[in-house]
Formats: sequence, C-alpha cells, structure tokens
Amino acid sequence: MDLSTLQIPVQKTTDSQLANVDFSNLPFGKVNTDHMFICTFKDGSWQDPKVVPYQAISLDPSAKVFHYGQTIFEGMKAYKDSKGGVWLFRPEENQKRLNISAKRLAIPEVPKDIFMEGLKTLVETDHEWIPRTEGSSLYIRPFIFASGRGFHASPADEYTFIIACSPSGSYFAGKVGVRIEETYSRAANGGVGYAKAGGNYAGQFYPTQLAVADGYQQVIWTDDNAHEYIEEAGAMNIFVRIGDTLLTSPTSDRILDGVTRKSILKLAEAENIPTEVRKISVQELLEAQKNGALKEMFGSGTAAVISPISSFGYKGQRYELPQLEESYAAHFKKRITDIQYNRAEDPFDWRYPVK
Amino acid sequence: MDLSTLQIPVQKTTDSQLANVDFSNLPFGKVNTDHMFICTFKDGSWQDPKVVPYQAISLDPSAKVFHYGQTIFEGMKAYKDSKGGVWLFRPEENQKRLNISAKRLAIPEVPKDIFMEGLKTLVETDHEWIPRTEGSSLYIRPFIFASGRGFHASPADEYTFIIACSPSGSYFAGKVGVRIEETYSRAANGGVGYAKAGGNYAGQFYPTQLAVADGYQQVIWTDDNAHEYIEEAGAMNIFVRIGDTLLTSPTSDRILDGVTRKSILKLAEAENIPTEVRKISVQELLEAQKNGALKEMFGSGTAAVISPISSFGYKGQRYELPQLEESYAAHFKKRITDIQYNRAEDPFDWRYPVK
Repeated sequence: MDLSTLQIPVQKTTDSQLANVDFSNLPFGKVNTDHMFICTFKDGSWQDPKVVPYQAISLDPSAKVFHYGQTIFEGMKAYKDSKGGVWLFRPEENQKRLNISAKRLAIPEVPKDIFMEGLKTLVETDHEWIPRTEGSSLYIRPFIFASGRGFHASPADEYTFIIACSPSGSYFAGKVGVRIEETYSRAANGGVGYAKAGGNYAGQFYPTQLAVADGYQQVIWTDDNAHEYIEEAGAMNIFVRIGDTLLTSPTSDRILDGVTRKSILKLAEAENIPTEVRKISVQELLEAQKNGALKEMFGSGTAAVISPISSFGYKGQRYELPQLEESYAAHFKKRITDIQYNRAEDPFDWRYPVK
Repeated sequence: MDLSTLQIPVQKTTDSQLANVDFSNLPFGKVNTDHMFICTFKDGSWQDPKVVPYQAISLDPSAKVFHYGQTIFEGMKAYKDSKGGVWLFRPEENQKRLNISAKRLAIPEVPKDIFMEGLKTLVETDHEWIPRTEGSSLYIRPFIFASGRGFHASPADEYTFIIACSPSGSYFAGKVGVRIEETYSRAANGGVGYAKAGGNYAGQFYPTQLAVADGYQQVIWTDDNAHEYIEEAGAMNIFVRIGDTLLTSPTSDRILDGVTRKSILKLAEAENIPTEVRKISVQELLEAQKNGALKEMFGSGTAAVISPISSFGYKGQRYELPQLEESYAAHFKKRITDIQYNRAEDPFDWRYPVK
C-alpha cells in the first residue's frame, strides 16, 4: 500500500437517515450517522480500509472481544464553522494515543495514514451530520476490538478498526457533582489506566452507580494504595483552582493523557496563569475548601469539554463550591471552543481542516 | 417465568460438524460444538433462554462491549466417564461467581435456574462432543456482554448471555515456566481483579508477551504497590510447596477465588497435608529456593487443571525447580480428575450429573 497516496474507497448509503434526526434535541452518542470507516487486521497487516454504510457487525461468539475485553477507543469531535468549514481538533494526538493504547493491550498499531485518511474521508462523507447548534458537535469514536476467535486467554489474530460518528449534545445534563472515592479504584500502578482500554470503563460503572445513587454524577478516582491523592474522573481529567493557581495531577501509568487537559495547560501557560502539575492530596483539597482558597474545580475531556464541578463529596459529607463570576472553567471553555469552531485565532495550530 | 419448571427450548442444527473434528488432536478452545445457549436481558429482565445452532452474533457498532469492555465470563468443563455418564464439576460455584462478577461490572445478575438449566440443556444436546481421550474434555464458556447501544460511558441497557462449548486438549503444551512480575500489574486494590472481567485478561497480554519473548509461558502477578508478594498467574491460581507445607495466597479483591484452588485446599485438609493460606513474599520464595526448602510450585485452574511449574524467573535470573517423584501437583491432579471423570469416590459431592 503506497502510504502517501492512500485513497479510501467510499460506498455510499442509498438510505440516508439524516432527515429523521432532530438536531435541536440531540442526546450524547445515541444517534449514528449514515456511514462508518472500517479496516481489518488479518494475516499480519491492516487491510481493506473503506467507508461503508453504517451497519451491524457479525462476529463469532468466540471472538476475543467478548471474553477478554481486548478493545481500545478514542474520542474526538468535528466542528462546523459559520461558513461551513469542517474542523477537527488535534486529531494527531488521538492517533498517537490510540497506538499507545494498542501497544499496552497487545493490539497491532494502526498506520498513521490509515487513521488520518479514514477519519477525514468519513467526516467528509458525513459532513452534513455535523450539528450547527451551539454546544453540539459531531462526536467521533474510533475503536479497535479483537475479532479473532478462540477461548485461549491470549491476544487475537484478527482485529477490527472502526470509526463511527454521532451528532451529539452535551455529555452531562445539568450540574456535575463528584464523589472522591475511598473504597474502589480505577487503575493499578503498572496497569492499563493510561490507556483508553475498554476494561477501564467497565470497572468504573458499579462504583459510579453507587455515587449516582447518592446524588453525584461522577467519581473522582484516587490512588489505589491509600486513596490519598486525587487522580482523574474516568470520563474527564480533573483541574483544581486554589487561589489563582490552576492545579492538575501529573499523567502517569494510572492517568489518561487527555488532549483537552494538555490544551488547557498550554493556554494557561501562554496567558501566564500560574499552573502546577503535581499530586493533589484529598487533605489539601479539604483544607483549601475550609479556608476558602478552593475557588473552583472542573473536569476536562473531549466528550465533556470543560465541565464545572458544583460540589464534591467525601466521607459522607458534601462540599459546595462557589459560583464564580469569572471562572477559569468558563474562560478556558470559551478559549478552546472558539478555536474548535474557528471563531478565534489558533496560535498553536490545533485546528485541523477537513473541508 | 416459573423457575421450578424452567424448560429450555432446543432448536437443533441440521448441519452437524461433529464428523469433521479430529478428536485425537484437539487444540484448546478453537473448535466449537454444534449448539450454544443464548439468553437476552432487555426491558429489565433476562428473557427468551434457548439452545440454538452455533451461530454468528450481529451487533450494532455502538454496542457497549466494543467500547467499555463490559463483559464477564466463566470457565467450566464437562467430562464423560467410561460408561457414558456426563458430569460437571461444582457448577454452582461458577454460577455464583458469574453473578459476583456481574455485580462488580454493573451487569444484571442471571437467575440461577436460567444458568443451570441452560448449561445442562446445552451439554445434553452436545454430549456427543465430549472427548473421551485422556486429558481432553469439553471446555464450557459461559459469558455475558453488553449488547446495548451508545457511546455514553455508562452501563448498557441490554446484555447477551451465551454458553458455548469447545472440545479441548491441554491448555499448556509442554513445560510451564513463569516470570515473577516486577513492573506491570494485573489488578488494583478496590479494582476488579477478583471478577472474571474481560479487561483483566486484555491487560495481561502485553506483559505476558514480554515474558514469552524471554522464554516463559505465564506471568506471576505481584501486588501493584511494591511487587513484593505473589498473587496469581492470570489463568491460574498459584500454589507453592515449602518443605511439606502447601501455601497459596488468600483471595482478595485482587485475586480470583478459583474453584480448583479451593478444591485442592479442601482435599489437602482432608488428607492432613499442612496448608497455609497467607501472603507469600517473593523474598520468602527466593530464600526457600536457595536453601532447598522450595519443593515445587504449580498453577490451578479449570482450563489449566493443575500445571506443574518447571522454573521461575525473577530479576533476569531463572530458577529451576526440582522434578519430584511424588509431587503434590501430580497427587492433586489425579485426585481431582479422578473425581471429575467418575473414577473415584466423591466425598464432597462435587460431581454434578448431566445425564
């Protein structure tokens, strides 16, 4: 395959569902576009990349994804500007991270041009599905799963790489309260926490259900050893503002290297907003809350964008956070979405044109 | 559904593959029988349990198993005795553990009679597939995965429970060398290590590949905090014999409660073989190896049965284990398989008749 001239064939649907979608009332990640990108790994290489009508996948019951959770994904978005231009945001970061996840999960890495050309061809094909309502976008889900067969607990010999898209509204409906976890854990030292591995998410569902039952939306995960330091929220990295300093935990083998997270750090640095990337103890958070230095907390992620946290819970007590007039959350949300939707200068070349 | 009289309908295949299988040369987990059991969770309940011809599964690309690894499984075997009697081994332990896994992975628990009647009906239907060659058996794989749709990182609203079977030979071909892990980890405190969750296995593949590249077959996982204590081998629990004492690590939220493991402990207790269920440090293992007290190590599990370990590696050095004339591994393997194949008394009622 000549990588420099990779052309992705497109088989168009004859049964578009576009007219049936209510774009004024979009849920998150439930509506699919007309097409998907698909590529298969077999006989030792990724082959036959193509865009096809969105369709069901047929798998043998012994496909390893069903048994060993050998699956990874990425989350991205496409944005349409007021002139109809279509943009992605730092897609090469997702491409790189997908392969970082692939390596840790013993999944064959995807060549960069298959990822990038597949992505662009799909978004171009389905560009009419990109919402133009404020706060909505086309959520893009690249994922790879083990489609090879067998009950032996070892890596599969076949994999399927799909990119699917979903016009989506907000990830969270309403205020976001988080509970700082004291019992359960998301990731082990030396584990797969830094990868976007499927199993990282399944393991969070039950503890999150317990938090939801107590009136929270998400769990803030802590180290599994002593639950002493805050790490991430599973669907978001976590930022804390103490005084005027913006803090976030360093990435590690337990914490995802979020694209929104590092974009915020870069913007803050350029604006001379003081940042500290270091371990944040629960104790420090509680003390800052008590003495009034804790100004705000927010989560960051592609799906969640920047989500202000209205309260946090710890050891059965709920702590409300102040409602700031000029919050860092609102500031960075505006700065990032202005770049994403082509409403502002793009000093770091993060915007990536599709058409 | 009246649980006491649950009848599982059977739709028989018209295209049996039985005659095409070479039973004298069976791999592990690659050949499927003619039928499978399937049951679906939707609208809040498990429904429509049935045995059908083995067939492909069709899923929407947004099915949550592909994205969030929300999947669990069990491993069991069926045995045929010399008179044609068909037996399972402690199947209710697997039924209970499947639901323990389900709870932790936010998957709806399966009613006991659906599991047991589905299992028995399937094994009866495919009983001609049970190998009669020594060392072979019918491997049985119950598994549940999230078939509900959506890219939101939350539990699915639909699940599929399948039981599939595979006539299988040995899990390991040849000697089993293990490497004691110093870098990677299998499970976190407060994580899902005690569950048979898919993601636990995918996370082991890469470190296991590294061990295989160095000439080992499996990794012995250690605590993620300091890699100080041995835990389990991912596909097996681990036993160590020091002097005449048989040691194994206690189960915890990081270690699977293996059915073979607890059967060995019960048999050892009944025979007055001294056992200790306690944390085993790598240091203790090395010292016992050095002073000659380390007599043997073996793994236990449904797939692996009892697998003697011939050597272990640690910090780049390989330690050979003695070849005992009268090993505990050989002793317990004979005792357990004699019960499984109905060649000996069954003092604890572990054998479970199918037909």
